[in-house]
Amino acid sequence: MDIRNIRDILPAYKAIFFDSYGVLKNHRGLIPGVQNTIDYLKDISVPFRVLTNDASRSQKSQSERFKELGIQGIEPYHVVTSGMMARQYLKYKVKEGLIAYIGTEQAAEFILDDYKRAIPIVEVDFENAEDISAIVFLDDEGYDWRTTINHTINTLRRVNVPVIVANTDQIYPVAKNDVSLATGGIAQLAESVVRRRFMKFGKPDSQMFSYALDDLNGQGYNLERNDILMIGDTLHTDILGGNKFGARTALVLTGNTTEKNAQLLIDSTGVVPDYICTSILLE
Amino acid sequence: MDIRNIRDILPAYKAIFFDSYGVLKNHRGLIPGVQNTIDYLKDISVPFRVLTNDASRSQKSQSERFKELGIQGIEPYHVVTSGMMARQYLKYKVKEGLIAYIGTEQAAEFILDDYKRAIPIVEVDFENAEDISAIVFLDDEGYDWRTTINHTINTLRRVNVPVIVANTDQIYPVAKNDVSLATGGIAQLAESVVRRRFMKFGKPDSQMFSYALDDLNGQGYNLERNDILMIGDTLHTDILGGNKFGARTALVLTGNTTEKNAQLLIDSTGVVPDYICTSILLE
Amino acid sequence: MDIRNIRDILPAYKAIFFDSYGVLKNHRGLIPGVQNTIDYLKDISVPFRVLTNDASRSQKSQSERFKELGIQGIEPYHVVTSGMMARQYLKYKVKEGLIAYIGTEQAAEFILDDYKRAIPIVEVDFENAEDISAIVFLDDEGYDWRTTINHTINTLRRVNVPVIVANTDQIYPVAKNDVSLATGGIAQLAESVVRRRFMKFGKPDSQMFSYALDDLNGQGYNLERNDILMIGDTLHTDILGGNKFGARTALVLTGNTTEKNAQLLIDSTGVVPDYICTSILLE
Amino acid sequence: MDIRNIRDILPAYKAIFFDSYGVLKNHRGLIPGVQNTIDYLKDISVPFRVLTNDASRSQKSQSERFKELGIQGIEPYHVVTSGMMARQYLKYKVKEGLIAYIGTEQAAEFILDDYKRAIPIVEVDFENAEDISAIVFLDDEGYDWRTTINHTINTLRRVNVPVIVANTDQIYPVAKNDVSLATGGIAQLAESVVRRRFMKFGKPDSQMFSYALDDLNGQGYNLERNDILMIGDTLHTDILGGNKFGARTALVLTGNTTEKNAQLLIDSTGVVPDYICTSILLE
Repeated sequence: MDIRNIRDILPAYKAIFFDSYGVLKNHRGLIPGVQNTIDYLKDISVPFRVLTNDASRSQKSQSERFKELGIQGIEPYHVVTSGMMARQYLKYKVKEGLIAYIGTEQAAEFILDDYKRAIPIVEVDFENAEDISAIVFLDDEGYDWRTTINHTINTLRRVNVPVIVANTDQIYPVAKNDVSLATGGIAQLAESVVRRRFMKFGKPDSQMFSYALDDLNGQGYNLERNDILMIGDTLHTDILGGNKFGARTALVLTGNTTEKNAQLLIDSTGVVPDYICTSILLE
Repeated sequence: MDIRNIRDILPAYKAIFFDSYGVLKNHRGLIPGVQNTIDYLKDISVPFRVLTNDASRSQKSQSERFKELGIQGIEPYHVVTSGMMARQYLKYKVKEGLIAYIGTEQAAEFILDDYKRAIPIVEVDFENAEDISAIVFLDDEGYDWRTTINHTINTLRRVNVPVIVANTDQIYPVAKNDVSLATGGIAQLAESVVRRRFMKFGKPDSQMFSYALDDLNGQGYNLERNDILMIGDTLHTDILGGNKFGARTALVLTGNTTEKNAQLLIDSTGVVPDYICTSILLE
Repeated sequence: MDIRNIRDILPAYKAIFFDSYGVLKNHRGLIPGVQNTIDYLKDISVPFRVLTNDASRSQKSQSERFKELGIQGIEPYHVVTSGMMARQYLKYKVKEGLIAYIGTEQAAEFILDDYKRAIPIVEVDFENAEDISAIVFLDDEGYDWRTTINHTINTLRRVNVPVIVANTDQIYPVAKNDVSLATGGIAQLAESVVRRRFMKFGKPDSQMFSYALDDLNGQGYNLERNDILMIGDTLHTDILGGNKFGARTALVLTGNTTEKNAQLLIDSTGVVPDYICTSILLE
Repeated sequence: MDIRNIRDILPAYKAIFFDSYGVLKNHRGLIPGVQNTIDYLKDISVPFRVLTNDASRSQKSQSERFKELGIQGIEPYHVVTSGMMARQYLKYKVKEGLIAYIGTEQAAEFILDDYKRAIPIVEVDFENAEDISAIVFLDDEGYDWRTTINHTINTLRRVNVPVIVANTDQIYPVAKNDVSLATGGIAQLAESVVRRRFMKFGKPDSQMFSYALDDLNGQGYNLERNDILMIGDTLHTDILGGNKFGARTALVLTGNTTEKNAQLLIDSTGVVPDYICTSILLE
């Protein structure tokens, strides 16, 4: 396993896409070296974006969280979330009726365009289930799992409306060795019980990559897909998605993939990054 | 779809296996005709067994519940549960150490042979996780889902011990149109997150069928597999399992499969019962 | 099931995307009404594209085939194939070494950018397997299945290189009631045996939709996603992909989905088109 | 990883079940030490059976093959095949009509009870497809894959009859590093295309274990499940099946699992043998 220094790789690319959790920060706070790397990209005039599978907060709220952690230079426009892709879908395809959501009220406020049309799914009255125009999985928090999961399954058995999963992640880390089941995992359970196809947003899907590239080119850059380096800690989201999009990919070992299991995971999944780096720290 | 009268079919067989829920009883109580059918089998000296995917109660408790509902003649020895198969496994293969269970204390008492060795999985101390010798999914009740599911996943990430699923059912009916996620559904979620193979007990697996047949032959009957009629309401457990075992199978339309969706489900799954009957009511 | 006349729907959209097989043509030739519909779009100045999961032929060859069938007005630039997406990936991500392909020599010539670097996978010498830089599934024809599938599996066991599936379709129709296993089905078999993640191109993935939209906007149109109507015969490719992209979708009943099974398939998959039309014939 | 000597383990058990391929023999012939181990069991009066996922040959033919390889003492009655389980199913459940098979004529002759009722599936006439009473996957040899797989899929689209898979193995070794797709792999492909549930026979299913145990007890032994040691080279068939049956299990490293990947496979699958031994050679 050839481990490269990120400093030697960055200059070869015209734009950098970062994953957030496991790359820039983790459960303990910032990952060492973030500020330097962000500053360095500014110095060499290489634009960047942060692509995160998250539907619990807005771009503004994501940016504020980085500032609270002490990082300068990650503005709302730098952040692309899977929640934004879900919101875009709802804007284009779901115009009328109530939206039933699974998640916190705050997530609904941030992600759903017209929050007044939205109710927690446990408030769906089965007698009037046909008023529902879409069901959206936003977050694993904000509800009692037993009541909400069962009410979701029973709602799905009554109405055939689009079901949107605004974050495909199955688990997320909450401590060094501990994880929590994430939105994507809860949605997958419901999907398997009702045997339907839900609409899922987030890496490895190409939509967030396209959005970030279009956004940069809309601001005057003239980027091809292989001008981009995607830096991530997870093979089957960041690296698989980046590879398929046609970007170059760098795996960092500060999150889901460790120095110990990296080669094994690469060999057993067939998902091969272009580079492997210890972290985003410029050495 | 050729619907037959159960009265015309029963006399051709030397033993009858019934599923319980959806065949003998449902969320409202007894299904009409049960007592007559049980009495008729006694009259014509055809033995029967009740094969149920359930790990929340003992044989005795199952028999008592039938008596409370007003049925005479279903004794503890008539009942075969998936929980019994799990208990047999634990007896043969897991001898030492603590068993961590997901379910009610009552289920643990009924199903686990030596209840003193068992603790609810949320009581597993990660520092001493290696004391655990097996993990057993018993029931969907008796715990907070979020806390228990997450603690189960994090325990599974620490220890590689046998994981036993004592009831494979994914959902169970709680009202005319409503279901609740069952033990098997919760176990399948955990299995998919940790990517391991759990050991699952219950129909369609052949173990309950073998157990019931061996039990009858041990009492002096001399039955071949095709002397048996399995009567059930669910294609992918009762009928698939009965067919594969080599028994004859009858689908009744008083539970999961209705007159409206029976043909569609048979055609789309490829699971074909030998007979279809409206119910077990002798007409 | 509300069946609409396509004539009433088309004028509401600023661009039309057609699937090819089952919409414009089938195993017997053209589907009635194609020329009229193409001409009508020209009259009302609505641009169109043909999005087809096919990696056996070039845009030029696809266009010529329509002309041979008697259709005027479908030029090479109108056609977007999954093979083009795969070629784009190879251009961006795979630069050196030999490409091993599964399919006809003609498909390799059409789809692979630099045909000289490509060999049929059966010609891979296991002693020099590391010379291979990518494996590409192109077509179900052009080889003996037993020899090629086994050689592919044994090559995959030796090298961990990107595997590209240039057409995700599992089956394709060859006569009124008959199908043939397609490239996607053969690739899925290999994927399941070696337990790796292949990179798959074709609807429902959003890449072909993005490509066609970018192409139109690059020619001076100013289209939003919901200005587009995707017309297709298959729920889990055309309709699911179109819906997720944010386009409007119309299901036609001249291919994989029939008037008889449409409602059932919609209900059982949860993939709901915005419109259902008998065919693309303007009535 | 604690590697034990098989000599120290055997005496603790009252019966031994061996897998065949990868335990007693491989592509090069016999595995060293087989004759000694068989003789040793005879000396200490411990009965044994050979449980093999194979539907291409009869018990007699399997026994003769061992004799050709130079082994004495493995008689036809010692051998239990997945093909026998499939034959038993056909006897109990499929009485009339034609059986269409996928495999060699020889396999059909060995496995199908009444060979006169059987035809290769390519001979099924779609006009008279309803004459077929069952479809049986026997072997990966004896037919052109393209023609037969496509004819099988098109037959399955016309008739809804029991489909029996007489060997669940997905691949089998043909040389040191090379495998061939097996019957189970071909059946799984067809199953995924037609989305039906086939009936599969072979380890890890408990039927072969039950059969062998009943057979021994029928000959006067008085064995419990945990009196048996299952020795195999494959975690997800021999060891998973043996464990679930309640037998003790020993993994040998002379076949699918090697000293290099054993610990990794055990950890990643959660299938844990009771013992690990280098081979069946008595040291």
